[in-house]
Amino acid sequence: MNGAEALLHTARAAGVEVCFANPGTTELALVEALDAVPGMRAVLGLFEGVCGGAADGYGRMAGRPALALFHLGPGFANAVANLHNARRARSPVVNLIGDQATWHRAADAPLTSDIESLARPVSRWVRTAASAAGLARDGAEAVAAAAGGVATLIVPADCQAGEAPGPVEPLVAPAPARVPSARVEAVAALLRDGAPAALFLGGRALSERGQWAAARVAARTGCRVIAECFPARVERGAGLPRLERIPYFPERALASLGGLRHLVLAGAPEPVAFFGYPGLPSRLVPEGCATALLAGPEEEVEAALEALAAALDAPAAGPHLAFRRDPPPAPAGRLTPEAVGAVLALSQPEGAIVVDESATTGLTWFHAAATSPRHTLLTLTGGAIGMGPALSVGAAVACPDRPVLNFQGDGGAMYTLQSLWTQAREGLHVVTLLCANRAYRILQVELERAGRTQPGPKTRSLTDLSGPALDWVRLAQGMGVPAVRVETAEALRQALGRALAERGPHLVEMVL
Amino acid sequence: MNGAEALLHTARAAGVEVCFANPGTTELALVEALDAVPGMRAVLGLFEGVCGGAADGYGRMAGRPALALFHLGPGFANAVANLHNARRARSPVVNLIGDQATWHRAADAPLTSDIESLARPVSRWVRTAASAAGLARDGAEAVAAAAGGVATLIVPADCQAGEAPGPVEPLVAPAPARVPSARVEAVAALLRDGAPAALFLGGRALSERGQWAAARVAARTGCRVIAECFPARVERGAGLPRLERIPYFPERALASLGGLRHLVLAGAPEPVAFFGYPGLPSRLVPEGCATALLAGPEEEVEAALEALAAALDAPAAGPHLAFRRDPPPAPAGRLTPEAVGAVLALSQPEGAIVVDESATTGLTWFHAAATSPRHTLLTLTGGAIGMGPALSVGAAVACPDRPVLNFQGDGGAMYTLQSLWTQAREGLHVVTLLCANRAYRILQVELERAGRTQPGPKTRSLTDLSGPALDWVRLAQGMGVPAVRVETAEALRQALGRALAERGPHLVEMVL
Repeated sequence: MNGAEALLHTARAAGVEVCFANPGTTELALVEALDAVPGMRAVLGLFEGVCGGAADGYGRMAGRPALALFHLGPGFANAVANLHNARRARSPVVNLIGDQATWHRAADAPLTSDIESLARPVSRWVRTAASAAGLARDGAEAVAAAAGGVATLIVPADCQAGEAPGPVEPLVAPAPARVPSARVEAVAALLRDGAPAALFLGGRALSERGQWAAARVAARTGCRVIAECFPARVERGAGLPRLERIPYFPERALASLGGLRHLVLAGAPEPVAFFGYPGLPSRLVPEGCATALLAGPEEEVEAALEALAAALDAPAAGPHLAFRRDPPPAPAGRLTPEAVGAVLALSQPEGAIVVDESATTGLTWFHAAATSPRHTLLTLTGGAIGMGPALSVGAAVACPDRPVLNFQGDGGAMYTLQSLWTQAREGLHVVTLLCANRAYRILQVELERAGRTQPGPKTRSLTDLSGPALDWVRLAQGMGVPAVRVETAEALRQALGRALAERGPHLVEMVL
Repeated sequence: MNGAEALLHTARAAGVEVCFANPGTTELALVEALDAVPGMRAVLGLFEGVCGGAADGYGRMAGRPALALFHLGPGFANAVANLHNARRARSPVVNLIGDQATWHRAADAPLTSDIESLARPVSRWVRTAASAAGLARDGAEAVAAAAGGVATLIVPADCQAGEAPGPVEPLVAPAPARVPSARVEAVAALLRDGAPAALFLGGRALSERGQWAAARVAARTGCRVIAECFPARVERGAGLPRLERIPYFPERALASLGGLRHLVLAGAPEPVAFFGYPGLPSRLVPEGCATALLAGPEEEVEAALEALAAALDAPAAGPHLAFRRDPPPAPAGRLTPEAVGAVLALSQPEGAIVVDESATTGLTWFHAAATSPRHTLLTLTGGAIGMGPALSVGAAVACPDRPVLNFQGDGGAMYTLQSLWTQAREGLHVVTLLCANRAYRILQVELERAGRTQPGPKTRSLTDLSGPALDWVRLAQGMGVPAVRVETAEALRQALGRALAERGPHLVEMVL
């Protein structure tokens, strides 16, 4: 058995089942080892950003890592943007990066570069394997490290191909730390005093279990329950309790938290502005509001919320705590962002996974979909666009029985449009709702916010995608994905219904 | 004047005329500053890999840097693969990367990351600007540093927007070091002894001037003249002297250098294998052959070659030293790699810039085109695929009067297919000859070389792009580029002729 086989057998024994790969010559021993390890699925991406994003989506949905296989530093670099999102999502991901044989590194051949320097900014764990014999152990450590986020193992070609003694036992990943009861008691005391308060939920607190515990606390104390702006994964829809979401722009976020005296952090870091704007603060906690830590992102936040509910003698969870609201009216006529949000909220089927990189088009959907059929929402945790099409690949591989709706801006879609090919090859049930506003609209909004009513010609040209207009129907068809273009709400509803009814990928270009 | 304007005025005064940009919120002051600086062209890429590759192509052809504008760490990371090629090409490139405002960095907002760690592996110079007042000076230093390769300046948003005293004078970039005459004399002595020898040319030695000087030395001493495998830029075609190229695979390279006693390095590092193969060496200099340094890549190699010719009392350059050969016969029937190479060699017009990322399909073209009309060849210096379509953008912007032929493998084209949109928007005269072999053929070749005649199903699936087959005609049309598909040599010749006759971008999908 060679090192590559020992590594993959070890990963398989640790529960890893999928490898999203874009290999090259230095990874061929790992590629061949995939054939030697039963139960390890190989999924090809035609660009590494597809593989990195797919591994993120898989990790968010499966709760365990996939492998992502890359070709040296430049190949890995192509995945860094989506791995940045995975890092912010704390997604379990194991990167395997092939490298020059150890004895060939000093030759400084054309593809040689400092891979560790590229890997560190997105990885919580980085190692360069030193020998074939140690590779299985390296792999076991990488999989265990990935329980807390992105782990990167660099594997020189000779370590893959060299003789190895065999796989090793999986390692037990450290469990999230328990929150001390004194901290729970202190938060309970704060909330008992009756001053305006909110629970600020992030990470695992946005699971169904976490949200129910938070709803119990809210029912008992009257506090608000607010999600972080870009959750990795949040369960939503009819039958679940009410959940606010902190607005994106800092002035709106500050206004929405205005009047609070306590903000209790539950699995989320303190809210901060996405960007620093002159005259606005970094921290989005209003004056007069104190933050209190219930659980950090690495701690057992669901249990802490349940302990908090118990300490407050909160009522049991149940349908009486569910959020109720009439569905939005069915829109008609020309597509607007609001109409798109309403159509999606009205059409999305039970059990959908919504991958939201809709940017400016999607602002109203979150609210509209609060009482849509139960669904899971995945968002742009790290702000690196190009996440949606790739994340959808991984979510669909992890959950083959659930439809994936990729609610996707055109600007971001262009970064990883190669994902459509993998969706076609694997027959994944992904419907891409492509928001064709033909602009980097968020930049136009930012210019408006800054009072730039007359941007110059170069500024306009750099924020405008309309010359020439991308033809997303042809782009999708060129990758093997059936596609249609719609311009009205009625046509969108029809097209979405048809796409959902037929398994396999589809794209609906929504001209806005 | 703000820092961004002071920076761009400084760059403009230093000769910079183009900015290849994919901006975001943190770069808006730089975007607006483009409007404030006359003579600075803004070219939008819909993916950062387009901008990085375009800056490389521009730098190779213009001999001076363009700016490449990126959005924080993740945006920059998307360009790292092509900037890796630029680094290996020693192309002049100035990266400008926007970052969080200095006062907002500690908030660790979602897009914040360690940009310097990402930048170092591809940059010879990296700096994070500290103030608006110092930004013009930072820019002057960046442009000067870029004379020797890739320079990266990270510009926090507040440094762009803050008040600055104005532009600064351009700095004089250090000239390449002169080669000491003792070294020239030593090499001349070696070559005089009559033992089999070769000049190994790289970098600036492959300019017309460098090649003529080498040809004079060859005419005098009988030595061979061999180019490095992946030159950044080489002048070629009818009227120029004979130029060999060292083969890609190490066993062939060693065989081709077999019998040499002296290998004289002129602007190229010692030849090494692209990858380390078991049983084959890293160094491609055969036993019994000694290397001698005439000029390193940072030295004045053209002058050194001329000094060498003078020291040897070599004949003058002229048509008598030109390489002569009959053109290849016009191929007919089904397309093969050999037929494609011959058609291109026969059809390429005078003055073409050939951007070659044709991988396995292109192996015969270099030889076939030796006596085609004069052309410039740009190759995959760093081995990071996805170079061709992007490099073509920059080459066409630098040389608007020359046709660009992007001889391009389909695997690599998928990495930066967004380049086609920029070619359409800017009306660039780029003809993409897309080699649709629907495989990572080089990997299949590597498996064959390793004796793997029966690869397993996962291995086959990870090297095969045929299910579904990409439809490059639709993909190109979706980006606004006219396209046709051809399956015979005759049809290719016709399609290429038509595409060259009409200004603006075209794509010809060659089904192999």
